[in-house]
Amino acid sequence: MVHHAEASTFEQGLSKAQAYARVLEEAEALFAGQRNWVSNLSNASSLLHHALKSVDGPVSAINWCGFYFINPLNHQELILGPFHGHVACQSIKVGQGVCGAAAATMMTEVVPNVDEFPGHIACDSNSKSEIVVPIIQNSKVVAIIDIDCSELNGFNSEDAQLLEKLANLIAETCDF
Amino acid sequence: MVHHAEASTFEQGLSKAQAYARVLEEAEALFAGQRNWVSNLSNASSLLHHALKSVDGPVSAINWCGFYFINPLNHQELILGPFHGHVACQSIKVGQGVCGAAAATMMTEVVPNVDEFPGHIACDSNSKSEIVVPIIQNSKVVAIIDIDCSELNGFNSEDAQLLEKLANLIAETCDF
Repeated sequence: MVHHAEASTFEQGLSKAQAYARVLEEAEALFAGQRNWVSNLSNASSLLHHALKSVDGPVSAINWCGFYFINPLNHQELILGPFHGHVACQSIKVGQGVCGAAAATMMTEVVPNVDEFPGHIACDSNSKSEIVVPIIQNSKVVAIIDIDCSELNGFNSEDAQLLEKLANLIAETCDF
Repeated sequence: MVHHAEASTFEQGLSKAQAYARVLEEAEALFAGQRNWVSNLSNASSLLHHALKSVDGPVSAINWCGFYFINPLNHQELILGPFHGHVACQSIKVGQGVCGAAAATMMTEVVPNVDEFPGHIACDSNSKSEIVVPIIQNSKVVAIIDIDCSELNGFNSEDAQLLEKLANLIAETCDF
C-alpha cells in the first residue's frame, strides 16, 4: 500500500530542479479530484517544506514555507494560510512588505537580503532572505506562495521560475 | 521587537500541562482580532507541533499535527486542513477511521495503537498512536484536531482534556 506521506518523502542531496520537479508531479497527482484550496495549499506547503529541506544548497535552510490568501471580505488584505514553520503574522496589507509587494504588482519578488527590502515585515528574526510568488486566477491575485530562508541569498531566478509553475498549477486546479 | 515566531518557540523538557498551557495562552492572543478559521488553524497547527515536540515524553514523537474540516458542500465529508507533517489524505468520510469516528460521535478518540482501531486510515505507516478531538460550534462538528505519534501510547486523558480546551477556544473565536 502506498501511503500519502510518501509523496513528501525526498532523498537528501537533490538539485533544485529535481526537488521542484517532484513537487510539481506530486502536487498534480494530489490535486486531481480535490479542488478545495485549503486542502491543496495545506499539502503543497508540506511538499515544498520537505522538498527544499532535501536540496543540496542554501535553500535547505528554509525556516518558513506557506501561503497567504486574499481576504474575501477585504481585497486589500492578505490573510495567513497553511504553512510549515513558526507562528506568523495573521494579516498583511496589500502593498506592505515583500508579500504585499508581490500581491500589489502581481510579480514575483526574490529578496536576497530582507533587511535591505523597504518596509519588510519581520515575523521571525531568523529570516534572512525570501521569495514571494503571486497566484493569479482570472487576472487577479488570489493568494501568494511565501518562503523564508535563514541564510542570505536563499533564492534565485531558478526558484522563481519553478515556483511560478506551481502557482500556475494551483490557479488551474483550486477553487478559491 | 517581539516577533510572531517567538509564540511557537518553546524550551525543551516541558510537562504536557506546561506545553498545553502555553499553547492556549498563545492561541488566545493570536486569535484576538482575527476570526478567519484558516488563519487561526494554520497558526494553531504550528503552536501544537512546536509545543508537543518540546515535551519530555513519548508525545514528543508526534509526526503529524493538524486539522480536518467539514466540507461545506457535503457535511458527510472531512477535508484536509492546515497541518505540520508529511502529506496527508485529502478527504475522509464522516464515520470512517479515527477522524471520521470522532466527527460522527462528537467525542474525543484516544487511540493507543492505531493498528487495533477498526477501519483505521493510514496516511503514514510511521503513525502508531493518535488522538482526534472534535471542534463543536452551535451543536455541530465544524472541524477536528488530529495528532499522530510515531510511538505507541502517545496520548492519554490529559491530552484529551487539554485539547478539548483548545477545541472550545477555536469554536468560540473562529468563523467557519
